[in-house]
Amino acid sequence: MASTPYQQLEQEFRRLHAIRGAASLLRWDAAVMMPRGSADVRGEQLAALDSECHVLLTTPKLSRLIERSQAMESQLEEWQLANLREMRRERDHAIATPLSLVTRLARATAIAEVRWLEAKQESNFALFAPHLEEVVALTRDKAQVLSQALGLAPYDALIDEFSPGFVCAEIDQLFNAVSRRLPQMIREAIELQAARPPLPVLGKVSVAKPRSLAVAVMRALGFPFDRGRLDESDHPSTEGVWGDLRVTTRFDMKDPFAGLMGVLHETGQAMYDLGLPVAWRDQPVGRDRGMALEESQSLLLEVFIGRSRPFLTWLRPLLEKHYGATGPEWEVENLYQTLIRVRRGAIRSEADELTYPVHIMLRYELEKRIFDGSLPVRDLPEAWRDGFEQRLGLRPANDAEGCLQDVHWAIGSFGFVPSYVLGGLIAAQLYETLRRDHADLDREIEGGRFGALFDWLRANVHGVGASLSAQELIRNATSRPLTAAPWLRHAEAKYLEGIG
Amino acid sequence: MASTPYQQLEQEFRRLHAIRGAASLLRWDAAVMMPRGSADVRGEQLAALDSECHVLLTTPKLSRLIERSQAMESQLEEWQLANLREMRRERDHAIATPLSLVTRLARATAIAEVRWLEAKQESNFALFAPHLEEVVALTRDKAQVLSQALGLAPYDALIDEFSPGFVCAEIDQLFNAVSRRLPQMIREAIELQAARPPLPVLGKVSVAKPRSLAVAVMRALGFPFDRGRLDESDHPSTEGVWGDLRVTTRFDMKDPFAGLMGVLHETGQAMYDLGLPVAWRDQPVGRDRGMALEESQSLLLEVFIGRSRPFLTWLRPLLEKHYGATGPEWEVENLYQTLIRVRRGAIRSEADELTYPVHIMLRYELEKRIFDGSLPVRDLPEAWRDGFEQRLGLRPANDAEGCLQDVHWAIGSFGFVPSYVLGGLIAAQLYETLRRDHADLDREIEGGRFGALFDWLRANVHGVGASLSAQELIRNATSRPLTAAPWLRHAEAKYLEGIG
Repeated sequence: MASTPYQQLEQEFRRLHAIRGAASLLRWDAAVMMPRGSADVRGEQLAALDSECHVLLTTPKLSRLIERSQAMESQLEEWQLANLREMRRERDHAIATPLSLVTRLARATAIAEVRWLEAKQESNFALFAPHLEEVVALTRDKAQVLSQALGLAPYDALIDEFSPGFVCAEIDQLFNAVSRRLPQMIREAIELQAARPPLPVLGKVSVAKPRSLAVAVMRALGFPFDRGRLDESDHPSTEGVWGDLRVTTRFDMKDPFAGLMGVLHETGQAMYDLGLPVAWRDQPVGRDRGMALEESQSLLLEVFIGRSRPFLTWLRPLLEKHYGATGPEWEVENLYQTLIRVRRGAIRSEADELTYPVHIMLRYELEKRIFDGSLPVRDLPEAWRDGFEQRLGLRPANDAEGCLQDVHWAIGSFGFVPSYVLGGLIAAQLYETLRRDHADLDREIEGGRFGALFDWLRANVHGVGASLSAQELIRNATSRPLTAAPWLRHAEAKYLEGIG
Repeated sequence: MASTPYQQLEQEFRRLHAIRGAASLLRWDAAVMMPRGSADVRGEQLAALDSECHVLLTTPKLSRLIERSQAMESQLEEWQLANLREMRRERDHAIATPLSLVTRLARATAIAEVRWLEAKQESNFALFAPHLEEVVALTRDKAQVLSQALGLAPYDALIDEFSPGFVCAEIDQLFNAVSRRLPQMIREAIELQAARPPLPVLGKVSVAKPRSLAVAVMRALGFPFDRGRLDESDHPSTEGVWGDLRVTTRFDMKDPFAGLMGVLHETGQAMYDLGLPVAWRDQPVGRDRGMALEESQSLLLEVFIGRSRPFLTWLRPLLEKHYGATGPEWEVENLYQTLIRVRRGAIRSEADELTYPVHIMLRYELEKRIFDGSLPVRDLPEAWRDGFEQRLGLRPANDAEGCLQDVHWAIGSFGFVPSYVLGGLIAAQLYETLRRDHADLDREIEGGRFGALFDWLRANVHGVGASLSAQELIRNATSRPLTAAPWLRHAEAKYLEGIG
């Protein structure tokens, strides 16, 4: 059967999608099922699949097919054109990061990750510094070649890998708008909350039951258990592909909500994956529109909906059924106050909705300075401590609670961090529009009816896939460009005015 | 770093090993964890990985590297030469089965498998016949190209895929030797056993406990649970690779031994994989020596050891501990008589050690006739019924209990079937030598000490990998070529003389 260059391209990317799906399943297995001793073997398998994908994207044949398809663009339809653009984007990224560099980075980060853990356990940055320096040097090389290939500044090129379309100029503007208001809001929220501390919620939660509650909630949200699973792992995650989605969470016997909030967060991402345009599910244009959008869907479900009075009103009888939860500490208002508690703390992963952006914006500033050369790696601990104190009025006790607390830099994840805050801003802007379009939304959520919510998200976000840029998607969905205003309005209403 | 053509070949096959390991994990997941609805997505992923392997083996580059390595053979050591020979073998098989044929076969068998299940449920061969005809026609094409490439007769070329080195001429001779004695032995064994029927063993087995017993047995055998798992699936299987072995079984609440015997069978294969030469674990010469050898290791553990008085003597206290099994029906002699019961029956998967070969040898004859053209697919049901009645004195009630009972032919597994009986013959010959070398073996097994057993197997079978042909391996291990005599001696002693 003769096929056009464009059709042959689709065939190549179908292979790519299948191999990436296999790799995702292997990562899931490593987190959930794999015996500890098998990490080396799994590492080899994942490296081999990554390398297959890289080879596939960088063959001269693929580039020829892209060129020939571009010459025939007039014969392509709109989605096909968008698909071709995304194919080119993936090819450009792959060609700009040659396999030799990828391999050196993989080796350096594997060592750095081990040293990072030792350094964190001893709270001794010096153990980690030389390894981080090597990872930074290699990542700088990568940023340089990406920069030339994509016509972006080096750090912008790193961001583009995670959240295509976002650049520092826009991010700075958004983050500055948040930073101007946030310290004052945090102070006021903590004062207000201190006046009405919630009763402690410490139900006796048996091992089996947090899972049964989580499954019940996921079912109500529409997660398809005939094409997906919920399991437990050290860190919540979403792996798999459309047609076989694997959500994990971590249940904590001392905290009846930790596992559930992880489930809501990951189910937000899973529902995004599920709502991607099915006809394009094995093509680049059928993928999600990057980490910032993905995070927006997670936060929308976990924070905007999950930590709201309407949702907790619906959840209340389920808590009674699955946890046997009765008594005044399980009343909706007490749960709500518990789940929106603002606290100053040194650890990002334990931060709340208001202090979380402070952690992220500090890291973003430090990453920018590392890559513009103004911050040497050896000065990182001091810069962290100073920056944190200045932003949150709290000085970390040591480096384990400072710049050593997270693994991201050890594994070379630079450019990823702004998506955490961007996700919150996007979620706020989407949710503001959604609630304006659906005056009944709160009542529907109170009744456990999430159909209208996901219909809107599918129509305006999920179903768009990667056919538009993140900026176009947001503008189409909300009739405005992305700003920090909706998030600030949301935070003010929720934390200072008691609405939500 | 400059590397020789041979070193580059090793690198290519390392990639192949990693991709095959990933595929094996995906098959394990499909059997154990995957939601039912995700089969289509998994099928695409497995097809993509298969196709990657095929492409890797058939690139001109690989063939050039093989040629250049062959030209430099004088510089290679013994294991490297054996590795090069196995590399060539894999390449020859891959080149002889072009991707277009593989794809057509995959499509035809996918449909045939569905139709086979319908046909079996309705016991209506006519529903299945046209699809089986297509599978046979395509497999005949494949046998033809393989035949020319390998210099073997077509059906021998199919066997070579599963059990390299075995050809019909040798198999016929071995099977004829078995067939001459078997019908009479089955008659005598059934008569002898009828005189002393065992007490029924029907312990109340709770859901959790068959697993705990199986894990205890696997631990005693040396299965490494830090680099492997035991799970449940519809059919017992062994997947994974050295370093991450995944054994599955199926527990049956009505039969306290079904799951355990499956575990012994699969652990035999897993211990083979575990004992393969570690230094060559990601190379062709470090693989097992084909299905017949693999089956020999499964049968050695399940049938020769598992269904013996010494093993049951060791197992007895474990049965009491994990099943709470007490009373006369749980005495060693009663368990032994239960586990070696001979019965004439139509279903292969329920057959015992003596009648099982009858099922297999019938299928082998029918496969040969299908591929030499003397048996049209439409005449298969009648040929099966006649052949079965003639060999076992029993006429299947219908085709569901006849030629439709198993999936093998629907999925194009032709040439696989003789390995079941070959495995038994090899196991018998190995075990006869092993017991001669280790006079204390029975006492060690009674004491739950399996070290000497696996030391011998690792030295003589597992550690050989694919460095020798199956025939050389057997001759080295037992000082004789493979014959049916040890198996006949074993069967006669166990079933007619009460020894074992």
